[in-house]
Amino acid sequence: MKLTILGTSAAVPTVKRGLTSQVLTVENRSYLIDCGEGTQLQMQRFGVARGKIRQIFISHLHGDHVFGLPGLLTSFALNGRKEPLDLFGPIGISRYIISILEATTAFLTYQLTIYEHETTDSKIIFRDHLLEVSTIPLVHRVPCAGFLFQENPKQRHIIPEKIVEFQIPFHKINGIKNGANFVAENGQVIDNQALTLEPSVSKSFAFVSDTSFSEAIIPQISGVNLLYHEATFLTEHEKEAILTGHSTAAQAAEIANRANVEKLVIGHFSARYSDLLPNLLEAQNVFNQTILGEDGLEILI
Amino acid sequence: MKLTILGTSAAVPTVKRGLTSQVLTVENRSYLIDCGEGTQLQMQRFGVARGKIRQIFISHLHGDHVFGLPGLLTSFALNGRKEPLDLFGPIGISRYIISILEATTAFLTYQLTIYEHETTDSKIIFRDHLLEVSTIPLVHRVPCAGFLFQENPKQRHIIPEKIVEFQIPFHKINGIKNGANFVAENGQVIDNQALTLEPSVSKSFAFVSDTSFSEAIIPQISGVNLLYHEATFLTEHEKEAILTGHSTAAQAAEIANRANVEKLVIGHFSARYSDLLPNLLEAQNVFNQTILGEDGLEILI
Repeated sequence: MKLTILGTSAAVPTVKRGLTSQVLTVENRSYLIDCGEGTQLQMQRFGVARGKIRQIFISHLHGDHVFGLPGLLTSFALNGRKEPLDLFGPIGISRYIISILEATTAFLTYQLTIYEHETTDSKIIFRDHLLEVSTIPLVHRVPCAGFLFQENPKQRHIIPEKIVEFQIPFHKINGIKNGANFVAENGQVIDNQALTLEPSVSKSFAFVSDTSFSEAIIPQISGVNLLYHEATFLTEHEKEAILTGHSTAAQAAEIANRANVEKLVIGHFSARYSDLLPNLLEAQNVFNQTILGEDGLEILI
Repeated sequence: MKLTILGTSAAVPTVKRGLTSQVLTVENRSYLIDCGEGTQLQMQRFGVARGKIRQIFISHLHGDHVFGLPGLLTSFALNGRKEPLDLFGPIGISRYIISILEATTAFLTYQLTIYEHETTDSKIIFRDHLLEVSTIPLVHRVPCAGFLFQENPKQRHIIPEKIVEFQIPFHKINGIKNGANFVAENGQVIDNQALTLEPSVSKSFAFVSDTSFSEAIIPQISGVNLLYHEATFLTEHEKEAILTGHSTAAQAAEIANRANVEKLVIGHFSARYSDLLPNLLEAQNVFNQTILGEDGLEILI
């Protein structure tokens, strides 16, 4: 799993920081999360392969998280995209997209399917051969949900020498990787444990933006390998965080700490901060394994 | 008059070229023309004073000319804008903007007035103390009109020595600049011609995007000081120009030539061209006074 951060500015873009958007890449697939204005350009800038994207997940319908969608969807079409695309977002996203496509007489060359979800309870909204995505209910000024990406359980590793030793035919290997025993030609049963090693650990990533400090999310994101948590303000501006439904760097770190996550990356910084070292230090003071989100940053999970 | 070009790419943005948007500045006012995705960022990049903008003119409702509007309008509000804003565009722009503002629960801190116009006939759609704006009907795949900006007639220049010689009181000066004669205390009538010099010439700028080659616009833009004409393709791709309702560099130059304009600036280049020298040369071959549009280019008119 690899996370690429495309934008780290809150509300308004700056010349240095784009608006919220991230790409999670797993093997040959990429999953786009949120899509502020300028996202298609950030993708070009940071070399994101757009053809790998089959699903887009939108946390909420504030402009700084969705104003890049119309441009991205129509640019896909202008480039002749054929692969279908799924768009997941809160109720209202369908009307938002359709009214824009209609008003601008946009023509799509691919099948776009829009799925709307409630943001009040956690639900599994997507599954493919690689992972499962469930919503994380957040507390913001409008309906908002983050997303938990959990890789599917992986296959066991077959020991190469055993294939030779027991002359295991090729068509049996997948079954053995999935836990089956092997019955040799002479009827001898070889236990799976003797043929395979433990599978690689399945990784998880939680995307939490935008939200007020919310302890309710802790059980759901407990122990994830990487947590992205918005950190719009410093503690000295906590009043504004409360007023606008956002979090401070210290609060993001407290959530990470109490959820016992492996790593935290913070972002969605108010444009008032030009130097972000104080924001990083404030978070690290609470949770040492904190990384500062930067446009173009890639994090291997 | 000063024109600042914010983007020169057609359809899709590239890392080097933003989407169509231009700012015309006259004294203390700026007029924004078209607003592709990323326009607010280009304004920051090229130091455009956003507070000077009171009017926005939109040529047509294709995404590459309007997808930057929602972000710009809401960023104005996030920055606490109080000055009213007028938005002019073809029929449908109102529904486009309102549906987006509603879907994203955007709140404006200023008065936004949206004026829709037909694009089939030329009409004066705006006048202020500096200039007059009329539509230029264009030929495109959707209703589309360019804009002709004409500075108002200027005041005559009063000759400073004459103020002293005839002891002209301060409150008479504006009238004399507007052509009035001066009646001295002794009843002597001084003819305006003896007191003033010819006014500065009023300048004009025509914005022509997007359009197929259209001779019909020539009379209206005849003799303008600066013509911006789209030049999406080279002549070698003329078939695509015809299919998509666009012009070639040579066609833009032919319009400039036949309209006897002072200068031509070309833009709206297909993303297929990375080096634009051939595009410039193709136009200059027909109309020598051609400038290549570039992001951030400022042209004094």
